[in-house]
Amino acid sequence: MIYPSNLADLIDSFRKLPGIGEKTAERLALSIVDFKQDDVEFFANSLVSCRNKLHRCAVCGHITDKEICDICSDEQRDGKTICVLEDYKSVFAFEKAGNYRGKYHVLNGLISPIDGINPEDINISSLFKRIENEKDVELIIALKSTVEGEATSLYLQKVLEGRGVKISRLSYGISMGTEIDYLDEMTLDRALEDRKVIS
Amino acid sequence: MIYPSNLADLIDSFRKLPGIGEKTAERLALSIVDFKQDDVEFFANSLVSCRNKLHRCAVCGHITDKEICDICSDEQRDGKTICVLEDYKSVFAFEKAGNYRGKYHVLNGLISPIDGINPEDINISSLFKRIENEKDVELIIALKSTVEGEATSLYLQKVLEGRGVKISRLSYGISMGTEIDYLDEMTLDRALEDRKVIS
Repeated sequence: MIYPSNLADLIDSFRKLPGIGEKTAERLALSIVDFKQDDVEFFANSLVSCRNKLHRCAVCGHITDKEICDICSDEQRDGKTICVLEDYKSVFAFEKAGNYRGKYHVLNGLISPIDGINPEDINISSLFKRIENEKDVELIIALKSTVEGEATSLYLQKVLEGRGVKISRLSYGISMGTEIDYLDEMTLDRALEDRKVIS
Repeated sequence: MIYPSNLADLIDSFRKLPGIGEKTAERLALSIVDFKQDDVEFFANSLVSCRNKLHRCAVCGHITDKEICDICSDEQRDGKTICVLEDYKSVFAFEKAGNYRGKYHVLNGLISPIDGINPEDINISSLFKRIENEKDVELIIALKSTVEGEATSLYLQKVLEGRGVKISRLSYGISMGTEIDYLDEMTLDRALEDRKVIS
């Protein structure tokens, strides 16, 4: 046993984090030995409280420490525009970009019949309920362009057909700063299709 | 405020770890939300117990959860051969390599007059005390080849001159698997100087 048992336990815990291999887990765990005691206690408390106090918002499925999340309760935001996302991480990405003033609906998954994930397995019925009695709703579908993302998007389009709900999706195209010659063919095709007249 | 406060606190804690930037801290903290409760509690307890229960070994200065570390108390190991290291991380590196059967002395620093770090500021007097009444001691100096490492090595050589202590240092040379044409000049010079007759 090379490491004292406390340290070995801590290394194991760090290894469970995504993208952290053995070497990094050792480096991180060893660094804790030289941390201030207050900082370590704050770290430990934050871990436990993050895991225990955060849960899904009753309206949109985003994570929150309240019954209804800050975004859903924000009267300033446009409740008629709902961006449909796979997970709460995407909400944070939108919020950081900072220009979207509508609300969200987090599916916490995507439809994938091959994996046995059907519409009733993800947070989708609450979306239908949410827009049931609303008029002039726009759903902005911001799901990844995989088979599962497309299947989920198609399902939404089909179920909502003829209900007067406007459905849009994010544009496909080149990322800012990307060299054209490095683009994959599919993205290039999509960017051409979604092209915008500029003059 | 994009993140719930628990999550923001946890991100701050992850950011304090070495080599963890903002993006990674966010990713790690978000992953905790989906952890099993037991795992999170184990993680939190390991953090606190690592910080509180680990301290320096009274003999060698390595970290341990006992009064005297497992290596110092191991009768099977050769107490006459002492490898002198800068920090406890180096001990773990040696122990992982697994072939060294002597003991260690961890200086917890290097002499650096320019930074005001003198011999009395590092764990060096306990080394002299440790070998005071011993015969046929060999000190293997395994410090990095910086100005501070060299200064510390020279200090040890000077103080122990004429006391019948054998002092050696690790050989300099090429790392396993390194391409010769990528070697820096200094390492190449040193490898040439430390060359070994093989036939």
